[in-house]
Amino acid sequence: MNQKGLLIVVSGPSGAGKGTICKELIHRDHDIVVSVSATTRAPRAGEIDGKSYHFLSKEAFETMIGSDSFLEYAQVYDNYYGTPKQFVIDRLEAGENVLLEIDIQGALQVKRKYPEGIFVFVLPPSMKDLRHRIIHRGSETADSLEKRLSCAYSEIEYIKNYDYFIINDTVCHATDILQSVITAEKCRVNAEIEEIVKRFKEEMENA
Amino acid sequence: MNQKGLLIVVSGPSGAGKGTICKELIHRDHDIVVSVSATTRAPRAGEIDGKSYHFLSKEAFETMIGSDSFLEYAQVYDNYYGTPKQFVIDRLEAGENVLLEIDIQGALQVKRKYPEGIFVFVLPPSMKDLRHRIIHRGSETADSLEKRLSCAYSEIEYIKNYDYFIINDTVCHATDILQSVITAEKCRVNAEIEEIVKRFKEEMENA
Repeated sequence: MNQKGLLIVVSGPSGAGKGTICKELIHRDHDIVVSVSATTRAPRAGEIDGKSYHFLSKEAFETMIGSDSFLEYAQVYDNYYGTPKQFVIDRLEAGENVLLEIDIQGALQVKRKYPEGIFVFVLPPSMKDLRHRIIHRGSETADSLEKRLSCAYSEIEYIKNYDYFIINDTVCHATDILQSVITAEKCRVNAEIEEIVKRFKEEMENA
Repeated sequence: MNQKGLLIVVSGPSGAGKGTICKELIHRDHDIVVSVSATTRAPRAGEIDGKSYHFLSKEAFETMIGSDSFLEYAQVYDNYYGTPKQFVIDRLEAGENVLLEIDIQGALQVKRKYPEGIFVFVLPPSMKDLRHRIIHRGSETADSLEKRLSCAYSEIEYIKNYDYFIINDTVCHATDILQSVITAEKCRVNAEIEEIVKRFKEEMENA
């Protein structure tokens, strides 16, 4: 097994169910580290600083942007949201796997900064199912529903930038596949293989 | 999931335990297709033509070499051994996963002819363990034992040509990992993704 941790980026169109799959993965795998986002929006009732989000002032956030301290960030209306880089890098160096659940634009930013990440695209079983899921979240007008669906339509093109796709037929099955992806990727031949070969050869010479 | 089957090539130094892992995989996964080798050597007692091997005359084997009908082949002393190509390609096209357990030189030949294969290198937990396994197979003189170990030593370098490495600490654990690799690879974004995107888009347009 490779020593360095994996950055697992789970992404996909809104309504595909990436959040539910990530929750199930965290529930099953207690060793996985979840990245906590930073934001400049005000905390809501019950939200805990450092757990729900890292709540930052606009100035602090912009200073971090200036020092390239985010793996990705976006401005949504008046607020910033982003993934602080140092925490993720530290955990990966310590050999821990880090999970990042993120929208497609964010994932593409992460890929530019950390191409060694494992990029997983979650698909709904069908577009009909996606429509159903978005409607059942409620709070969508007919107009915003069409907007969301049309957005999902164009977002699916981005799947080509990902390493894996998982069809979210059931949460259990989709999470099984995500776990298999993590297990497989820990055994992928990469730059770390030199170290493993070296260890075997040294052992052989000392035998 | 991708529609085309996977060619899973399990390889590694002699004594690493690739045969045992493959047997356990076949035992667990009844859908996996095992490729049967062809040979010009005479059948031994109990061997069944088409199951143990495809037993061919030297002339028939050489005709197949001439028509590029092997994924790989080798001459060992007076006999040929090889993997007939058509059977494997037909099963893959039918969406079935095909398992090929093969030595390193054979695997490298397969990779040249079928680079889309999944190449898995099985490592012993340690060189000490490899020595132990080879001795316990019996029938090795001190001299041929050293030859085998020295061969394993140089063969480990070839791991760089593989996609995955599996440390055979226990057969059960190693087979778990091999199954995860197969599950993950079925969901890898590859040329087939265009088809999946197309299907989603058509469904969306007809919704």
